[in-house]
Amino acid sequence: MRIGLLGCGTVGQAFARMIAEQGETITRASGRRLALGRILVRDAVRTRDGIDPALLTTDPQAVLGDPNVDLIVEVMGGIDPTSALLRQALEAGLPVVTANKQLLSRHGAELLELAAAAGTELRFEASACAAIPVIKVLRESLLAAEISAVTGIVNGTTNYILTEMTRSGLSYADALRQAQQLGYAEADPTEDVDGADAAAKMAILSSIAFHTNVRFDDVPYEGIGSIHAQDIELARDLGFVVKLLGVARLAEGGISVRVHPALVPERHRLAAVMGPDNAVLLESGTVREIMLVGPGAGGTETASAILADVLSILGTAKGSFLQNALVDAGRPLLGPEQTSSAFYVRLDVQDRPGVLAQIATVFADAGLSIRSVIQRGEGDGAQLVLVTHVGSEARMTAALAAMRILDEVRDEPVLLRLLAEAAT
Amino acid sequence: MRIGLLGCGTVGQAFARMIAEQGETITRASGRRLALGRILVRDAVRTRDGIDPALLTTDPQAVLGDPNVDLIVEVMGGIDPTSALLRQALEAGLPVVTANKQLLSRHGAELLELAAAAGTELRFEASACAAIPVIKVLRESLLAAEISAVTGIVNGTTNYILTEMTRSGLSYADALRQAQQLGYAEADPTEDVDGADAAAKMAILSSIAFHTNVRFDDVPYEGIGSIHAQDIELARDLGFVVKLLGVARLAEGGISVRVHPALVPERHRLAAVMGPDNAVLLESGTVREIMLVGPGAGGTETASAILADVLSILGTAKGSFLQNALVDAGRPLLGPEQTSSAFYVRLDVQDRPGVLAQIATVFADAGLSIRSVIQRGEGDGAQLVLVTHVGSEARMTAALAAMRILDEVRDEPVLLRLLAEAAT
Repeated sequence: MRIGLLGCGTVGQAFARMIAEQGETITRASGRRLALGRILVRDAVRTRDGIDPALLTTDPQAVLGDPNVDLIVEVMGGIDPTSALLRQALEAGLPVVTANKQLLSRHGAELLELAAAAGTELRFEASACAAIPVIKVLRESLLAAEISAVTGIVNGTTNYILTEMTRSGLSYADALRQAQQLGYAEADPTEDVDGADAAAKMAILSSIAFHTNVRFDDVPYEGIGSIHAQDIELARDLGFVVKLLGVARLAEGGISVRVHPALVPERHRLAAVMGPDNAVLLESGTVREIMLVGPGAGGTETASAILADVLSILGTAKGSFLQNALVDAGRPLLGPEQTSSAFYVRLDVQDRPGVLAQIATVFADAGLSIRSVIQRGEGDGAQLVLVTHVGSEARMTAALAAMRILDEVRDEPVLLRLLAEAAT
Repeated sequence: MRIGLLGCGTVGQAFARMIAEQGETITRASGRRLALGRILVRDAVRTRDGIDPALLTTDPQAVLGDPNVDLIVEVMGGIDPTSALLRQALEAGLPVVTANKQLLSRHGAELLELAAAAGTELRFEASACAAIPVIKVLRESLLAAEISAVTGIVNGTTNYILTEMTRSGLSYADALRQAQQLGYAEADPTEDVDGADAAAKMAILSSIAFHTNVRFDDVPYEGIGSIHAQDIELARDLGFVVKLLGVARLAEGGISVRVHPALVPERHRLAAVMGPDNAVLLESGTVREIMLVGPGAGGTETASAILADVLSILGTAKGSFLQNALVDAGRPLLGPEQTSSAFYVRLDVQDRPGVLAQIATVFADAGLSIRSVIQRGEGDGAQLVLVTHVGSEARMTAALAAMRILDEVRDEPVLLRLLAEAAT
């Protein structure tokens, strides 16, 4: 299975690395071996790590016309000439995977029709929210779920800026500068901060959710440039946080799709989505609310979504690639005694002089290091709460056994584990 | 396409309703018409709303042996005789969709092997977390993403109980009783509160995530019965909330899968998952963290996951059902003037006597009702912040136009919309 790659920037190179590194998993799951065929680039002289220079070409027809190319992956972006190239590929019956939200949100319906007419497939998971599989979930899992609303934080740049304005009281300009320094905003952030990027994604998502052709031009959008630190502060006083939302709703008489900054109640699940993360909340009478959260951008994240689309096309073509998903990879299961975590232990103790020393000795003998101790109450009703650093279950089991036989320990100790430091 | 239904309880009846109500969408998307064939029940005399009594039978062979049945949906539950019936169906080459976590977590690998050998499919999205499409996402979207950890709140009953203990300081017994009254816990809640239900789901999810056969018996589990209100209070003092977690990790030397109550840092994203909701956090080097949240139980929620599996099987068989997902359903797009929401308006005003009355008149004339007003500062630097009840964009546009020409209003008003009441 040879892939013709249109474009070889950050995402394209991440994709090339991924199919090389994941070759075995891909073959086991799909029964096919994926390889790169020709690669369209602007500059065929510059070398790219791990990519055979002989595959590079500056001629699109060398990729599209190569009889060994079975599938096109488009990561070059833009509308022209990309649109014409994808049309040509689909008309020739080649399946196409694209990450191009500009193109999809303007000409998605025509391209899907072309694909259907040619009996081939067009997939575009990476065009909205990178590796968050919201398009697959809408197209497949919730196809018949009658979606009533899609509400999303679909632009990481603006969510980062608003989060920092909220958390640190920064001005818009300072938060934007910080986002640029950290790589969360581009040198020219216009598309992101004015809402156009979010509008393109909402056009794509609402088209799928509502089985209706919603184009970029149909989506009115507002950005976050007019939001002042004082609005964020006032919103907080009123019990809200400010987010740039894409809001698509099924209403009486039709569909409404918009992008605008909004006050979100601080206990709403979208209010908890921080920094550069994206989140999409899907509402439906049959499934109530399902939310997907994750990174909405990034090279490997986007490449992962592209690879998933490629695998879905292989699976669809083969009929049953999923059978192979649960093959035994030969990984042994570790018993509890082989795992570790930090522990919380609550003991009902008799508060006598020396009891803490005794318990501390038990932990020390078991080789468990104590991070904090709280003592509550006095006399017979006293309690000791110990939180340990990460240690093995075997050590904790030994410590528990030793504590149980102490006269000062009444009742069975309560043992909980801490998530944060749970390193197997 | 005739479906043989094994079992017709809450989920089975919801599924029957759904394929009747969603018939048009299903046919448009898959090119096939779904209908119920024979239905296995315990009591064929009792009538069920909207189901033809002639389809009911108490004889499993009447379903499995019916030459018109193309696909089996199993919602009868249990291990025996269900296991034998599904084996028989798969061996006969019938695709099977099941919601049966007990069976899958004990015999999933054998059933998948049977399906592969017979060239047919076994799907089981509904067996873990109902309509949250975590199995599809793991099997398809993240197949090559090298998952390193799956951490889940996969039991709604216990999450409801722990949430109420945290929020209202209830004892375990009182919170359990409340959960039973509200239908979040069964009369016999043992499977849920002792962690067995979560362990079955984690066996299924970790098998898919790590391409390894993890069975129910491989998953050590602890429940929440020993958690006291004081542990929840102590945890809070330490900066944590208590959750029942399924934790599956790829570690050096193998895989560790466990279910136990855990202290989750209060700012962690799993800490925000409240009430009967489920959530699964998927970690991977390539896609960082993706979280899926939603209702983990319920009749229509589970039926929706089953229908999605059925549609995936139809799509796989046909090769391209997804082409049809973006057909124009003929829904018109509403312009902004046809939408409504509650509004936040911040005005820089000159603080003269009567300015509030003037602004209030503008809102009244536009037909917008004011919910709250905040005035900040004095003199030239004063600000008015008004929050309205839900009203149309057209009215807000009129009010803005009227405000702009007032001498007392300096600069452009800042307009934000409120999410919560955004109707339309």
